Parts: sequence; structure tokens; C-alpha cells
Amino acid sequence: MRWEVRVELKPGVLDAEAESIAKALSRLGIAGVRRVATARIYDLEFENVTSQEAERLAHDAVDRLLANPVIHRVTVRAAPG
Amino acid sequence: MRWEVRVELKPGVLDAEAESIAKALSRLGIAGVRRVATARIYDLEFENVTSQEAERLAHDAVDRLLANPVIHRVTVRAAPG
Repeated sequence: MRWEVRVELKPGVLDAEAESIAKALSRLGIAGVRRVATARIYDLEFENVTSQEAERLAHDAVDRLLANPVIHRVTVRAAPG
Repeated sequence: MRWEVRVELKPGVLDAEAESIAKALSRLGIAGVRRVATARIYDLEFENVTSQEAERLAHDAVDRLLANPVIHRVTVRAAPG
């Protein structure tokens, strides 16, 4: 089974990539964009574990590797499809 | 309104970040992970445009800035919530 981890920057933390994209879109003449935000998805596929165990492992991966609680907001969910 | 662009690597394109994460998880003793994949989300918030126009602009942004059709698979959808 697969669990999807979504890592975003917390409100107030500068999203430099998003700022660059917003500027580039404006330069390209793609108007009407009020705000850009980015997020990173980590799709983790588990084998030989229960769904409950997989969810625990996904949260473990977040805490120990994938995110920094000071700057990141994280959501973990069963991957769709 | 907000549109969410999800950019993934096509199957067969090396996902170097995912490989590094898989190795690191194994080193950390987080076992049972068969595969890791990554994706990038761009959340575009539009103003003063219709939903249809916003969708067209989002696809424009993908074609001209956010993705490379040689290596990327892209999905565009109305952002949930």
C-alpha cells in the first residue's frame, strides 16, 4: 500500500521558489495569478506491513527525515488510486 | 480560485531524490519501504478570471514554465478545499 506525505512551508516562511515562479509567470504575460505556493510530495510504497504499521512508518519517515517541524506543515494520507 | 499543478517524473526517468530517500530510510531502520517517488506541487491562486480562464492559464504555466514534457508527467486540477 502507498502513503502520500505532503510537505509545505508554514505560513510566514518565505517560499523562494514560489516567488520566482510568480515573477516568471508575470514576465511571460500569464496574468491573473495572485499567489503561488509550492509543496513537495513523497509517495511511499510499503510491502509486507499492515496499513496501520505503514502509516506509523510514514510518520516516522516524516519526523526523522522528510520534514523540519520548525518550517514545514505536513499531511500524511493513504495515496489515492 | 486555486488550481493545483502536480509535476512528477515519467516512469523510467531516474528520481535521484527518491533514491536517496529510500537509502536514508533504510539506514534509519525504517523498513518495509518498497519504493519512493517524489512529486512537486504548484498551487496557483487566480483572481479576476473565470474558472475556465484560470484552468487555461494554469495549463499555459505548465507548458511554458513548470514542466518539461520530455521527462515530466503533469496533472492539473481544481485545488481541493
